[in-house]
Amino acid sequence: MRVDRTFTNARLATMAGAAPYGALEAGAIAVRDGRIVWVGPTADAPDCDDTTDLEGRWVTPALVDCHTHLVFAGDRSGEFERRLNGESYEAIAKSGGGIAATVEAVRHSSAADLAAATLPRLDALIQEGLGTVEIKTGYGLNFKSELNMLKAIRSLGLVTGLRVQSTLLAAHAIPPEYSGRADDYIDEVCLPLIHEAAREGLADAVDAYCERIAFTPEQTRRVFSAAREAGLQIKLHADQFSDSGGASLAAEFGALSADHLEYTSESGIVDMSKAGTVAVILPGAYYMLGETQKPPIEALRKAGVPMALATDANPGSSPVLSLLTIANMGCTLFGLTVEEAIAGITREGARALGLQNEIGTIEVGKRCDLAVWDVDNLAQLIQWIGARPLHGRILSGDWG
Amino acid sequence: MRVDRTFTNARLATMAGAAPYGALEAGAIAVRDGRIVWVGPTADAPDCDDTTDLEGRWVTPALVDCHTHLVFAGDRSGEFERRLNGESYEAIAKSGGGIAATVEAVRHSSAADLAAATLPRLDALIQEGLGTVEIKTGYGLNFKSELNMLKAIRSLGLVTGLRVQSTLLAAHAIPPEYSGRADDYIDEVCLPLIHEAAREGLADAVDAYCERIAFTPEQTRRVFSAAREAGLQIKLHADQFSDSGGASLAAEFGALSADHLEYTSESGIVDMSKAGTVAVILPGAYYMLGETQKPPIEALRKAGVPMALATDANPGSSPVLSLLTIANMGCTLFGLTVEEAIAGITREGARALGLQNEIGTIEVGKRCDLAVWDVDNLAQLIQWIGARPLHGRILSGDWG
Repeated sequence: MRVDRTFTNARLATMAGAAPYGALEAGAIAVRDGRIVWVGPTADAPDCDDTTDLEGRWVTPALVDCHTHLVFAGDRSGEFERRLNGESYEAIAKSGGGIAATVEAVRHSSAADLAAATLPRLDALIQEGLGTVEIKTGYGLNFKSELNMLKAIRSLGLVTGLRVQSTLLAAHAIPPEYSGRADDYIDEVCLPLIHEAAREGLADAVDAYCERIAFTPEQTRRVFSAAREAGLQIKLHADQFSDSGGASLAAEFGALSADHLEYTSESGIVDMSKAGTVAVILPGAYYMLGETQKPPIEALRKAGVPMALATDANPGSSPVLSLLTIANMGCTLFGLTVEEAIAGITREGARALGLQNEIGTIEVGKRCDLAVWDVDNLAQLIQWIGARPLHGRILSGDWG
Repeated sequence: MRVDRTFTNARLATMAGAAPYGALEAGAIAVRDGRIVWVGPTADAPDCDDTTDLEGRWVTPALVDCHTHLVFAGDRSGEFERRLNGESYEAIAKSGGGIAATVEAVRHSSAADLAAATLPRLDALIQEGLGTVEIKTGYGLNFKSELNMLKAIRSLGLVTGLRVQSTLLAAHAIPPEYSGRADDYIDEVCLPLIHEAAREGLADAVDAYCERIAFTPEQTRRVFSAAREAGLQIKLHADQFSDSGGASLAAEFGALSADHLEYTSESGIVDMSKAGTVAVILPGAYYMLGETQKPPIEALRKAGVPMALATDANPGSSPVLSLLTIANMGCTLFGLTVEEAIAGITREGARALGLQNEIGTIEVGKRCDLAVWDVDNLAQLIQWIGARPLHGRILSGDWG
């Protein structure tokens, strides 16, 4: 077997197979053309001139953050401060705060500005082992600025070496100029954007925010129909603050994922299970907003719905740039097991992006995207907040 | 005025004076012999050959973590995993888990082992701007191992460049060999250790854990009397899980701080206020243990009790190595303002260590210990979790 490189003497958490974490002690990986072509005991590794001894370190798949709003402009930390000083959400919204402030800043930014502002945020995630990230639009809310966001997202994939998945979320909120005319906004902005994004290859998926304060299920359905027509994948912000039937709607369209799910009903879970839709659990917003309604983890688990975890990184409700802290929150706040948490930021994150055949586990045929850790065991990764456990990152077989 | 060095063009959060954050735009600092000898507008800065332009960056006092258990051996992440897999605390304790596991590991460690194991944990805090840290003993629980911990703590002060305050916490728990004989443990181990630590200059303060599951107020009183006799400062783990009158007891002995305080009564707060005892707020354990009883922040605020925030970093109840995340928790979970949170990890942290004349603010006469940040405003530091905002750290006027 011709191989370009081998990595030996690792404790592999392959996240595949029956053993906990798919663990393989003293494991080795052989790489050809950036893909894993062999996994097994170091003693049996194929001969290769280019071999790296990982010195007994734990190795997981490189991390996957499958739900972020990392591309934005402006700064909403002032609102955080004002709320803690006692101002109400309403007063802050009335003075131009909330998502409106971010939309205003994004509309005044070029695609280059947006990409540049995002780089340090991606850096923080990279320093914790990130290999793949999804980034959504949804702060432009007009044709030009949503396209700028899509271009910024694509450019970040080119310059950072990360795998970046681009999701068009024009149906994130109703912009002020369409206030009271959500259907017109969908017809005049969202649907044309879907076709343009597909034509230009700027988006991999389409997302929408189905919620009392955003779009109705019927409006969401029109967005999804257009996405399907354009050949784009589908994701949904579902049932975060109320049960709008979002989980079932996502399942109906064969969505890759339904995200948030705090108020999802039993029937929504059954529908997701049948459709193979991934549940993306987002504890950052729950923590930051001081919510008390938790997503139905035990019911999702029983129904066999795959669960991913993501930062939901955004300047308002989830200002979080640590996927390991999110994994800790998944365990500490929602009761996920450590293995579910690690699967949630690797294997199931990949599945939530439709990339389960490319990344997310350490298996033959996958991209050789790895995170190498300085920890004694995998639970340490998740138990500690603020530790800096990454030894190094390997993407397509090369140190990143 | 002779000065060794100046730092100019900074947005100074001096944390002193009447303005919010004691802020001074376009500020400058002059240093001589490691101390601040002048603070004012850059335009008026004294002439100096050695000048660093901070390019408009925000500068705060270097951070202070005033309550940690950073020196330990072993690893308790397995317990974290087992609890999430459904095992009870009791089952884990019966199989040798909990603090007993850490004590066992520490007793098998040399002072050198303990110091070496602690370095990466300190590194994580340093990378977030730490200048001063307090570290407690309390995992040795016998004469030799508590002394080993004290030596490890002192050695970390020598090799890391941090200011490290050493606190003897022999009265942390009753070791197995003294089960049911807490008074004997105090007489035979704690009191001799206090005198030895004072004689050898190995401790700056004495702490105790006054709680139903640890030591009674009367036992704590004996520990504190010995500490006072030995000329050591006093701190107390008080009222974490029940109101044991810990806050009042701390005040009675003129303690630097009373820490935790979830169950502290109104009269305890009054006593702390009169004594000038700092309230050290520890949201890490509250978060990790899923507690619901919050410390009485509003009552402490009204009574004018200074509030510090600390990581409480330890392998069981607060595995946290990010003081900025702790500050976020102080705001998000307990309702501190951003300014209180920043004061809590600078000025009030220093006060909780009796170092308020040395560090904790940017004022003439203090050590020139600074943290320089890449943020647009101070609230960003606290709003975001997992961001890596530190530009650099200055200790005694030198880049660290």
